[in-house]
Amino acid sequence: MSSLEAQEPTAGPAARELGAQFLAEIREQPRALESLLEHTGEFARVAALARERGTRLVRMVGHGSSDNAASYGVYAFGLLPQLTALRDSISLSVYYGSHIDLSGSLVLGLSQSGRTPDVVEYVARARREGAFTVAITNDPGSDLAEAAEALLPLAAGEERAVAATKTYLNTLASLVLLAAHMAGRGEQCVDDLLTVIDLLEAAIPELEQRMPEVALPFSFVGRMFVIGRGVELATAREIALKLLETCRIAAEPLTATDLAHGPVAALDPFFPVWAIASPDATLPAVVEAAARARETGATLVASGAAADQIVGPDYLLPVPRPPAPLLSPLLSVVPGQLFAWALARAKRLDPDRPSGLSKVTFAR
Amino acid sequence: MSSLEAQEPTAGPAARELGAQFLAEIREQPRALESLLEHTGEFARVAALARERGTRLVRMVGHGSSDNAASYGVYAFGLLPQLTALRDSISLSVYYGSHIDLSGSLVLGLSQSGRTPDVVEYVARARREGAFTVAITNDPGSDLAEAAEALLPLAAGEERAVAATKTYLNTLASLVLLAAHMAGRGEQCVDDLLTVIDLLEAAIPELEQRMPEVALPFSFVGRMFVIGRGVELATAREIALKLLETCRIAAEPLTATDLAHGPVAALDPFFPVWAIASPDATLPAVVEAAARARETGATLVASGAAADQIVGPDYLLPVPRPPAPLLSPLLSVVPGQLFAWALARAKRLDPDRPSGLSKVTFAR
Repeated sequence: MSSLEAQEPTAGPAARELGAQFLAEIREQPRALESLLEHTGEFARVAALARERGTRLVRMVGHGSSDNAASYGVYAFGLLPQLTALRDSISLSVYYGSHIDLSGSLVLGLSQSGRTPDVVEYVARARREGAFTVAITNDPGSDLAEAAEALLPLAAGEERAVAATKTYLNTLASLVLLAAHMAGRGEQCVDDLLTVIDLLEAAIPELEQRMPEVALPFSFVGRMFVIGRGVELATAREIALKLLETCRIAAEPLTATDLAHGPVAALDPFFPVWAIASPDATLPAVVEAAARARETGATLVASGAAADQIVGPDYLLPVPRPPAPLLSPLLSVVPGQLFAWALARAKRLDPDRPSGLSKVTFAR
Repeated sequence: MSSLEAQEPTAGPAARELGAQFLAEIREQPRALESLLEHTGEFARVAALARERGTRLVRMVGHGSSDNAASYGVYAFGLLPQLTALRDSISLSVYYGSHIDLSGSLVLGLSQSGRTPDVVEYVARARREGAFTVAITNDPGSDLAEAAEALLPLAAGEERAVAATKTYLNTLASLVLLAAHMAGRGEQCVDDLLTVIDLLEAAIPELEQRMPEVALPFSFVGRMFVIGRGVELATAREIALKLLETCRIAAEPLTATDLAHGPVAALDPFFPVWAIASPDATLPAVVEAAARARETGATLVASGAAADQIVGPDYLLPVPRPPAPLLSPLLSVVPGQLFAWALARAKRLDPDRPSGLSKVTFAR
């Protein structure tokens, strides 16, 4: 940068570049998903192994965005191979040393970096105790990949922004691909994901263009609820985490039903609610919860493929209808990512490098 | 109230009575727990039935405080009979109509009122599909009690304040009693719970007396994190819910580890952190997370039986050491309940009847 440029009185190059990596990686998501689909054969093989090993229960472990994606896995495995999948307690085995029977368990260690210490340790213990362990990670050379018996690559390409985007999307896709292959529906799933790639390609530029104007009025917001239900609980959790880490908003994810079990009492006109509405059987619950939030005077953002079903939203951020309802979360997270990008910039924060965070988290 | 009293210029009787039911029920907790222990025989019988029915997996369902207690159940069942217990997805069966194999499943429907619609429906479906279903409710005549095959009463006496206290404590105790009986350790557990009653009796008056002074400076706080790990995740979730529903604070529960995976970036000196430290293997993780929070300048409240291990807290709210580490959450929730009571009063809010809430929630 020349000294002449640096002295420009208006927002200079540095300001324009806040969140440049974050935005680039949001835009890359269709390509990242395409790369993942090149590994379909590996998903088919691991699914076959999981069936051979008599999988009765799927145990998922991860932190942050990986754990949010695991909320989606509950539905992917529950609806496709009709298996119970749970976000397992890491503390129970890693800290308390419990020895629960793991026969018939498929263990999925979820970590972008593959270096999250307690996830690696959980997987290593589970493997010793007889579970079929699979690492789902963006780094095939990581500790996690080594600790697990099998590896499924996220294949998202290097993710440089601290706040995850394309690796979150590819974790969702990995979970649904594995679940579909275990249910003998892998081919249909690949076809549907190819459609999702096209829908993302079409939706991202328009959302990106609209978002700075939508996000600006939220510059003074200190807290938000993000509500979803069923498959969209994962999206609610992930959008809330983006807002926390990139925009310093105390954003809390809630199921549509849990909102009524207490938190609704905290709402007022300065406490916006972001509702994710998708075209499935949970829609009436989300519509009802949004209406309750609206009654308190809360500003309402309606998002998702069925956003138009929410009554009286202040902001409408719809996404295209997915080829199958189960795939909604791969689209509905995008407005949240772009909103976080635009709002962080409006607040002069850098979503590429939020203060106090690093790309790999070694915290216990 | 006479018209003379009503005209008093200073804070009148009405103001003094804010939260009177809530406080009375916090104080009643030792007696409520004593009442529960009169039903020990029923817990032993249901535990024996659960073993006879070949329980391999425990599925818990509930909303709000009941769901928070279920976070504790994960550890009670994991550590005592060494069974995997999960907070099951209600949406998966009730909304999406999935038919997952429920043989070998013990289903615990948790609802103070016994009238939460989707919990009742989940239990009714699970019973039809072959699970051993148990209602844990404060109303033995409720729909939930009728839907389930067996009933375990919370026996807490009528709870009138909207924000749950004694029924939360008795739900924790019910889960650990059932788990202990399934592990053949029911008698030891009853003895330990009798000790907890004595510890509660001794701790509540002093905490109650200190709390108005501790809570007052938080009157302008809009958001908080509440962190715990392992057995204390339940406590973190329950304290956060009390703060949300009675004090209108955007309080978010986090595991000590998840704090570092993003949310720490949102902290600043106006964003207090409440850390629950208990004397078990998770303590180093909580101490480390509290130190990270402290570095950001966040005001730090240290609570729990190992509160004195947290470095440099602004407020110290210890509780007595429990007779067994697994029972810590029955003590460590109390400072949170009393803090919520005192802070709500300082903000002229009524924790007995938070705006927008009713005692029985019928929301989908």
